[in-house]
Amino acid sequence: MLTGNAIIGQSGGSTSVINASLCGILEACLGEKAVRHTLGMRFGVEGLLAGDVIDLGRQDPAVIRALRATPSSALGSCRYKLKDADFPRILERLRQHDVRYLFLIGGNDTMDTIHRIEAHCRASGYELIGVGVPKTVDNDLWGTDHTPGFGSAARYVAMSVEQAGLLARDMKRVDQYVIFQTVGRSAGWLPAAAALARRDEDDAPHLILLPERPFDRQRFLAGVARCHDRYGWCSIVCGEGICTADGTPVSASSVTDKFANVEFGAMGGTSAAMVLHRMIHAAYGWRGEFQVCESLQMCAADRAAPGDADEAYACGRRAVELAAQGASGVMVSIVRDGSVPYRWSLGTASLAEVALAAKPLPDEYITAEGDYVTPACLEYLRPLIGPLPDYARLAGIVPGTDRG
Amino acid sequence: MLTGNAIIGQSGGSTSVINASLCGILEACLGEKAVRHTLGMRFGVEGLLAGDVIDLGRQDPAVIRALRATPSSALGSCRYKLKDADFPRILERLRQHDVRYLFLIGGNDTMDTIHRIEAHCRASGYELIGVGVPKTVDNDLWGTDHTPGFGSAARYVAMSVEQAGLLARDMKRVDQYVIFQTVGRSAGWLPAAAALARRDEDDAPHLILLPERPFDRQRFLAGVARCHDRYGWCSIVCGEGICTADGTPVSASSVTDKFANVEFGAMGGTSAAMVLHRMIHAAYGWRGEFQVCESLQMCAADRAAPGDADEAYACGRRAVELAAQGASGVMVSIVRDGSVPYRWSLGTASLAEVALAAKPLPDEYITAEGDYVTPACLEYLRPLIGPLPDYARLAGIVPGTDRG
Repeated sequence: MLTGNAIIGQSGGSTSVINASLCGILEACLGEKAVRHTLGMRFGVEGLLAGDVIDLGRQDPAVIRALRATPSSALGSCRYKLKDADFPRILERLRQHDVRYLFLIGGNDTMDTIHRIEAHCRASGYELIGVGVPKTVDNDLWGTDHTPGFGSAARYVAMSVEQAGLLARDMKRVDQYVIFQTVGRSAGWLPAAAALARRDEDDAPHLILLPERPFDRQRFLAGVARCHDRYGWCSIVCGEGICTADGTPVSASSVTDKFANVEFGAMGGTSAAMVLHRMIHAAYGWRGEFQVCESLQMCAADRAAPGDADEAYACGRRAVELAAQGASGVMVSIVRDGSVPYRWSLGTASLAEVALAAKPLPDEYITAEGDYVTPACLEYLRPLIGPLPDYARLAGIVPGTDRG
Repeated sequence: MLTGNAIIGQSGGSTSVINASLCGILEACLGEKAVRHTLGMRFGVEGLLAGDVIDLGRQDPAVIRALRATPSSALGSCRYKLKDADFPRILERLRQHDVRYLFLIGGNDTMDTIHRIEAHCRASGYELIGVGVPKTVDNDLWGTDHTPGFGSAARYVAMSVEQAGLLARDMKRVDQYVIFQTVGRSAGWLPAAAALARRDEDDAPHLILLPERPFDRQRFLAGVARCHDRYGWCSIVCGEGICTADGTPVSASSVTDKFANVEFGAMGGTSAAMVLHRMIHAAYGWRGEFQVCESLQMCAADRAAPGDADEAYACGRRAVELAAQGASGVMVSIVRDGSVPYRWSLGTASLAEVALAAKPLPDEYITAEGDYVTPACLEYLRPLIGPLPDYARLAGIVPGTDRG
């Protein structure tokens, strides 16, 4: 059995449960004979390159336990993509710390990183076992039923849309629409999850704009008007990355700064929801609001989906078991064994497979009109976010009559 | 004792606990001999004017109980300001339904509405008792220590800033700042509450921009740079209504549409946080994000502050007791009997007093620099939002050394 130190890193955007995976890896490493010391990279591979590494085995055990319920990336994260020139330095750092076990928690770029580090070590005759642990609120990883972190972000989205929907319905004499924007550039899993908030037909959301379908201004405005006619208001959920048919992000359209330069996305200070808001207001003159929560949906640990942190923790522990068995070049995956009742187990996917591309919503999860999700999609999503709050609704009983 | 029917209405923006007040009034009315039937106005005084009224006594008791934990305004709300010409119609409706007890839950405009309806009835020789129940997330009502609904919205703000602060700190190699915008046009109680999230000096928030102090671009940018130097990132919380010294809303500044018209506030599709975001990006070129949650902070019942719904319910019950005792022209108020431990009781304030104007943060709650709140402010706020989650933080232990 390969014996040496282990190192753990976190990569990419945060989630509410990525630290539960860190806790799982760390606790398993501390109980694993093949692992002498367990180190942590500060700010992902940037920390490894810079030698910014901490000793995780000597952390207060209470802190390690508390990681299981702490949102964000306790080690620090980065979005650095390794260049070819970085690999000799990476290898040098691994040698320096006698690292034989590499664990990275992240999305498809991260899986690609492990894959490349492993390949470089192999080519250099340095024995290293690398195992990936999935995470991303976007749920766009191949090779796993879903990603730890998605359920909690999806619960945040669905609960926000549910609560804001009650408010919007009760305030429809003042404001006629509400637009909620989710994160997720290219995949519509998070906007889709909002549909779980809808029980009665007039409940929010009424329209869901997915990055998987081209945005069309006329069709969108017609849909909004149809909902407004029917319900007296309209709830719209959109993914941040929706684009028109020619690939132009909605967040970039028809917004110019004072020098008339077109600005793109959040860094230009705009957002898809704001553009939709302007569109509706310009077309119909209604009042309404847009909600852009950005990273809040990635770190709302108090709204974690039941089971999400446990799955994240289990994925972490399994990564160490796999590594100790000599498995390398794999990512731990979650396998769905049943939806009703929900049952799951752990499996593996090859890093090469996962690293390829983002996984979109499949066609059978999107309605023919393209502006909502199907029952099959709801069945997939429901167990991942858990039951939503059940709120009271008054009956319209007319005084002095039997009419309800 | 005056005997007749009672009517309840909800007015203005929603809160997480305004239905708890409705539940308190309704349950007390159902047990009060002077009240025969209890009615509800749909969409506030608009419903009363239009005769859109429902029977609340015949609602399913389980629904009535569940109101205590249901956010938003279950009766529907409005922002209609009564015109002089409306009063004869109001009186006609009250006569038609034999209403002798009027209960409105709302802010200062609502208290003014009760005041004026009462005066009109008195002048017309129609006996009516009107009692107000306070609510507003803005906490800007005179005559009460705080308003039901504020604590829950403040908890949403503080928890959001706490969680997003962890994330921003862990992602500071990618994004250098995060801006959270609260509701509250003229009073800074909600942005102030974010300060409860800060335990360690580098915790969020670092700067709080209050509507009570003029916004100055140079001072703001200098403050952001100072925080960035010190912590490597910067967390900013702003009230939506912050203005420059000449009274121009920040949400209106330096944003023009493609026809070069200056646009104002959310209906122009912009917001203070977005303008600050553009400002920082333009000055320093950093990446960062802005968060505009709008009404989400007014309806997040799962994040209700401990005690907030109970206080709201108790205010509702007390309104009926006061009315049955013949008190009129008053609003129920909350009296603080102690901060550590927190103790409260109920009192009354005259409607005329409350209706006057919005209550700003007092000077002694704002630092001399004007960009943060004082310990006295924190002492006031702390019991209203309850304890925030305690998250884990890793120690920077260098491997192979004793250095922490």
